[in-house]
Amino acid sequence: MCLIVDGEHQKDDVLVTPTNFSMVEDGIYRSGFPGPDNFGFLKTLNLRSIVYLCPEPYPEENLKFLAAQNIQLFQFGIEGKADPPVSVPGDTIMAALKILIDVRNHPVLIHCNRGKHRTGCLVGCLRKLQNWVLSSVFEEYQRFAGRKSRITDLEFIETFDIKSLRQCLYSVIYQYQGYGSKKRRLLYGEESFSYSKPRVTSI
Amino acid sequence: MCLIVDGEHQKDDVLVTPTNFSMVEDGIYRSGFPGPDNFGFLKTLNLRSIVYLCPEPYPEENLKFLAAQNIQLFQFGIEGKADPPVSVPGDTIMAALKILIDVRNHPVLIHCNRGKHRTGCLVGCLRKLQNWVLSSVFEEYQRFAGRKSRITDLEFIETFDIKSLRQCLYSVIYQYQGYGSKKRRLLYGEESFSYSKPRVTSI
Repeated sequence: MCLIVDGEHQKDDVLVTPTNFSMVEDGIYRSGFPGPDNFGFLKTLNLRSIVYLCPEPYPEENLKFLAAQNIQLFQFGIEGKADPPVSVPGDTIMAALKILIDVRNHPVLIHCNRGKHRTGCLVGCLRKLQNWVLSSVFEEYQRFAGRKSRITDLEFIETFDIKSLRQCLYSVIYQYQGYGSKKRRLLYGEESFSYSKPRVTSI
Repeated sequence: MCLIVDGEHQKDDVLVTPTNFSMVEDGIYRSGFPGPDNFGFLKTLNLRSIVYLCPEPYPEENLKFLAAQNIQLFQFGIEGKADPPVSVPGDTIMAALKILIDVRNHPVLIHCNRGKHRTGCLVGCLRKLQNWVLSSVFEEYQRFAGRKSRITDLEFIETFDIKSLRQCLYSVIYQYQGYGSKKRRLLYGEESFSYSKPRVTSI
């Protein structure tokens, strides 16, 4: 990406984001399905992995892009049909969430087809883990889903049990230290401090 | 913010984001007007400054919060009325943009009243500086403005001349090095490399 180009604006440097692209957290992005038009933009993210939430095989040209950029693909096949409404499988979202909060996979891009429902559910569950109040979680979901907002997704997010993930984190401490200069990170066994019980991490 | 609370979810730790809150870039956030309910959440951002885009005086309780948290306020008074439509003043947006891209002010929160129009215009101009294609810039604007999207704002963003800012950056090189492990930063005179002309910074 060129930010300074000697005062000239160069057409071929213009960056096209995927539909519904946004940053979720430092190192976590979300979007609709990226195509070749977006590869130039995606390069600027220095992605380490992609969390793909559809059951369909990943397109050949996207796989080639991932191989060239050394980006790992994590696929979690979730049906996306609205009619009849299919409830999002909690176990699959939980598995995706574990990949998502592992900073060894960052920077990571979450995407499904349109970046509204499946992606919105996963991000909503991440927000619950971050202790966001439910109205804030819903507002963010709806900002991306717009008129396509689904009540079944909101119910899924509301009832998703985040406690079990907190339990899982007993062994891998997710130490959130805030934004900006202080960065959150996961501490692993070999590099953790000398404590045997999870700590309450407050900022 | 507590991410691990010994398997217990503590009500009083729940975080309320301001309306229309989102991360724009690492170290840059946007939202609607934050109130006391949001101060707990804002603390987690470790803000260094706030770019406030309304002409009205900043509320007393917000000023107290800023003083307690050592957050600097930059106010740029832009009228927000839609009827009759007031065109956004380009000079003011340019001044705000210079504050915004100066990493010495990061982490920074941009807000106006609802986080739709004035904030949307400023973020839109930042995206032009980042060489986002105009359709991506508009899509992001509309995601936050929703049905309140204003054609005058889109026209403002489209015609906003970013070249003059690139000229301004001749003296302060904004070296964008990407996301994730590599961080963008501003280089200042005393720490810059030995070059007299702006460099093309590509990733």
